Amino acid sequence: MSQNAHVFLTTMCLSVAIYIIQTYAIDKGTYLKHREAILNKERMEITGGEIALSADESKVNQILMTFKIKEIEYGKQNNLFPPAMHFFKAKPLIEKSDVFRIIKAMPKGAALHLHDVSLCDIDWLIKNASYLPHVYVCQEEGASMRLHYFDKPATDCYWTPLKDWRSKYGKDVVDQWLLGNMTLLVDDPVKAYPNIDAVWKKFLDTLGVADGLIFYAPIYKAYYYQALQEFYDDNVQYIEVRTLLSNVYELNGTIHDKEWVLKAYIDTLHQFMKDHPDFSGSKTIYSNTRFIEPSAVQDDINLSIKFRNKYPDHFAGYDLVGQEDPGFPLTYYLDQLLSPSQMSPPVDLPYFFHAGETDWYGTAVDINIIDALLLNTSRIGHGYAINKHPEALRMARESNTPIEVNPISNQVLGLVTDLRNHPASSLMGEGFPMVISSDDPGVWGARALSYDFYEAFMGLGGEFADLKTLKKLAIDSLHYSAMNLAEKQDAMRLWQKKWDMFIQSMLQEYGNLIK
Amino acid sequence: MSQNAHVFLTTMCLSVAIYIIQTYAIDKGTYLKHREAILNKERMEITGGEIALSADESKVNQILMTFKIKEIEYGKQNNLFPPAMHFFKAKPLIEKSDVFRIIKAMPKGAALHLHDVSLCDIDWLIKNASYLPHVYVCQEEGASMRLHYFDKPATDCYWTPLKDWRSKYGKDVVDQWLLGNMTLLVDDPVKAYPNIDAVWKKFLDTLGVADGLIFYAPIYKAYYYQALQEFYDDNVQYIEVRTLLSNVYELNGTIHDKEWVLKAYIDTLHQFMKDHPDFSGSKTIYSNTRFIEPSAVQDDINLSIKFRNKYPDHFAGYDLVGQEDPGFPLTYYLDQLLSPSQMSPPVDLPYFFHAGETDWYGTAVDINIIDALLLNTSRIGHGYAINKHPEALRMARESNTPIEVNPISNQVLGLVTDLRNHPASSLMGEGFPMVISSDDPGVWGARALSYDFYEAFMGLGGEFADLKTLKKLAIDSLHYSAMNLAEKQDAMRLWQKKWDMFIQSMLQEYGNLIK
Repeated sequence: MSQNAHVFLTTMCLSVAIYIIQTYAIDKGTYLKHREAILNKERMEITGGEIALSADESKVNQILMTFKIKEIEYGKQNNLFPPAMHFFKAKPLIEKSDVFRIIKAMPKGAALHLHDVSLCDIDWLIKNASYLPHVYVCQEEGASMRLHYFDKPATDCYWTPLKDWRSKYGKDVVDQWLLGNMTLLVDDPVKAYPNIDAVWKKFLDTLGVADGLIFYAPIYKAYYYQALQEFYDDNVQYIEVRTLLSNVYELNGTIHDKEWVLKAYIDTLHQFMKDHPDFSGSKTIYSNTRFIEPSAVQDDINLSIKFRNKYPDHFAGYDLVGQEDPGFPLTYYLDQLLSPSQMSPPVDLPYFFHAGETDWYGTAVDINIIDALLLNTSRIGHGYAINKHPEALRMARESNTPIEVNPISNQVLGLVTDLRNHPASSLMGEGFPMVISSDDPGVWGARALSYDFYEAFMGLGGEFADLKTLKKLAIDSLHYSAMNLAEKQDAMRLWQKKWDMFIQSMLQEYGNLIK
Repeated sequence: MSQNAHVFLTTMCLSVAIYIIQTYAIDKGTYLKHREAILNKERMEITGGEIALSADESKVNQILMTFKIKEIEYGKQNNLFPPAMHFFKAKPLIEKSDVFRIIKAMPKGAALHLHDVSLCDIDWLIKNASYLPHVYVCQEEGASMRLHYFDKPATDCYWTPLKDWRSKYGKDVVDQWLLGNMTLLVDDPVKAYPNIDAVWKKFLDTLGVADGLIFYAPIYKAYYYQALQEFYDDNVQYIEVRTLLSNVYELNGTIHDKEWVLKAYIDTLHQFMKDHPDFSGSKTIYSNTRFIEPSAVQDDINLSIKFRNKYPDHFAGYDLVGQEDPGFPLTYYLDQLLSPSQMSPPVDLPYFFHAGETDWYGTAVDINIIDALLLNTSRIGHGYAINKHPEALRMARESNTPIEVNPISNQVLGLVTDLRNHPASSLMGEGFPMVISSDDPGVWGARALSYDFYEAFMGLGGEFADLKTLKKLAIDSLHYSAMNLAEKQDAMRLWQKKWDMFIQSMLQEYGNLIK
């Protein structure tokens, strides 16, 4: 009783004190001045709010915001606001948007949260990889479709040449099947995927189907080249890719090891950069699923340290991936994850942990965020649940550790319906460190980065976010990357050049709209 | 360029500094100690985290948390977690819950955010009010159903005695129609109410239908008595009700004025308290819709000042209500709302503004929160959008102004699908001032306060929230009420007595479960 009474009386006295302070009469002029100061402060606090735009940038901002407000008003009037809708329904609206057009043209810097087998437009995979010779398909009852290249088909399944299916059922029908099996696209996603487990099951199935094509060595390189091309075409100059460095195979059955796969990335990147000198590069984050045994994580860590020494310009670090809710928490692997720092001398292996990709609160899954931070993660993959953890917020602010926000992924994979409720919205409001990425754009029919940037700009940033926010998100994506200082400086110089060109091209295209 | 370079280099240097600090080797023991300290700090920060439970309370907490974890685990395994589901689907699950049983039995203190015509279970209204003599119904094509008591029916509509309908179509059929017309209940709410405007339209329609019964003078008093009874039966000892003080009528067509209505509240409350000495009371917050002209608000304010002087024990203050998105912002009424403080001497008229009941960000609607705070609102009605406003959060923390959280209302009225994404979840995590209320329980088939308490405890508080959180929410509901100091002390004493009894009765009921 005494403690309750104490708490109660303390808070009561506090209220009385504040009440006395607040009851001064205030005239309208003072009120409005005070109000404006508060609103200005909030506009400064939002991501990018502190940036001062040049005269030309201000003109482009004026155009951008005219379009943005028009689209928001249209959304309000017609209950058709893309961030409030499921992406499958929103996509055609986004593609008609002037804001989206500007975002596509804008140099967006880097995409830092991506996975190796879901980078490209699935249409590309179907139109290219699935039409090569030697593609076989098998579809057993109750199981997912399987695709594979064979010189001579294996006997573990009833493998049929895919071209036979095409002859029998027609090209369009088969291509539509492939699309349906390699993406989550459906007419009614809410009905098709009633909960997070259902959508994750289908999600993993789609990746499994695509893997059969992607892991064929010639396609693996071509797929990655195409990924770089799609991001480049979308005005992204640098990407970081989480990869399992899975078994890549040749027609004759040869299986390549992880180092071969890593070198395939490096070789392909070098080729791409030769073809595209205005691209800053790409780095690899080795990942394994959070369902493996601790000893396997130790093997991964040892391998990562080796790769980091051998390919310091390309190999960025380590992560654990897969659906987080049913997976093991980071603490399950604590001995292994702490091991680099226990070596003599301590080894610095950067981590990029997925953490808190969940709606649950107070479980091992959202507490992964605290462990990720304690383990000095370079960034937090998703960090969706971070708002529920005041200490994690404090630690991330102090160590300037960004969350990697993937708005469309979080919606399609069942964490949030209306992106205006995405927790990163309030974090954007306070200028919390973050980068925007697209996770697995191929699986939900997005492409590269612009769709997610659009959702973030319109849905998370609301009417407070303008060109300053977009500019800051682009700059921060380079800043928070795994590039070293010299690489960052080069990338930043390149970005600035692209940005200046973007501003001029916007002025040229829309200059007549400026008042 | 120079500014960008500056921002970029500053943040880069900061990261390097932090990087150096962080790369110290850390052993597992130190890690786990540090981790535990952080988690303990978070568990202290959550609403009620600072409360020390007595030995008996700890035992009850152990029982409560055993049930809670069991229900969360069941929810995870079966994708059937009530706060993640629409309330219409969740309700039967909640009613089977042991946690809900305990919450019902718990003295919850006060419900502070309620509206006058949606307080009671609609079944009560149907079974009592609609079976009285003189009830007429009319249903014109394309319009909402209307109900009214007449000595002699009006001629503005084809009024039919309701009993004639019952004879013609059967009691059950007609009662089901009434239920359908006075609640939002449907089998598929997502389909029936595809957006916020659709659900608000139907919501206002349901209130309009019920009004025809409720505003009949004898029913008005009986309805309010029943409301007090339902809250009392649900172990709520005090309520505050927003009311439009609408036109209450007699059979002969007499219309009563606002003061009569206010006195009806007072008289009914006195009767109720005579019948229930262990009830702390009720206060009235006069409200008008946010669609009226400024001059009408000035009239309201003048009337409120009069009522506040004349009925100081009962009349709490003023608010503006209705769907906030299409309504006028508080600034539209700024002259009027500032007027009491401009009077000589300044008059203290407490405000209880609805503000930020929206998913939009950066609009006049969510900025209402800042105006509500600047206008010294006693509490913020909903404040749903407050997370997106760091300055509003700061102001509310400093002035200890709580938000009134109505979880089920926010879900049913289209702001959020999965309550684990409700913004008050992170606010509960940091112990932000809040009270839990139920807004319009009758309209969505809830009753009194326990359903919303359950959703808040399970959905917003996650696994971190335990009996301490519930206790703090109960205490705070009295603390943040419009009661004066003496009333609060009395109410708190009564609550403590009820709480002690609750703890003992739980020990008696579940004592055998304690390890």
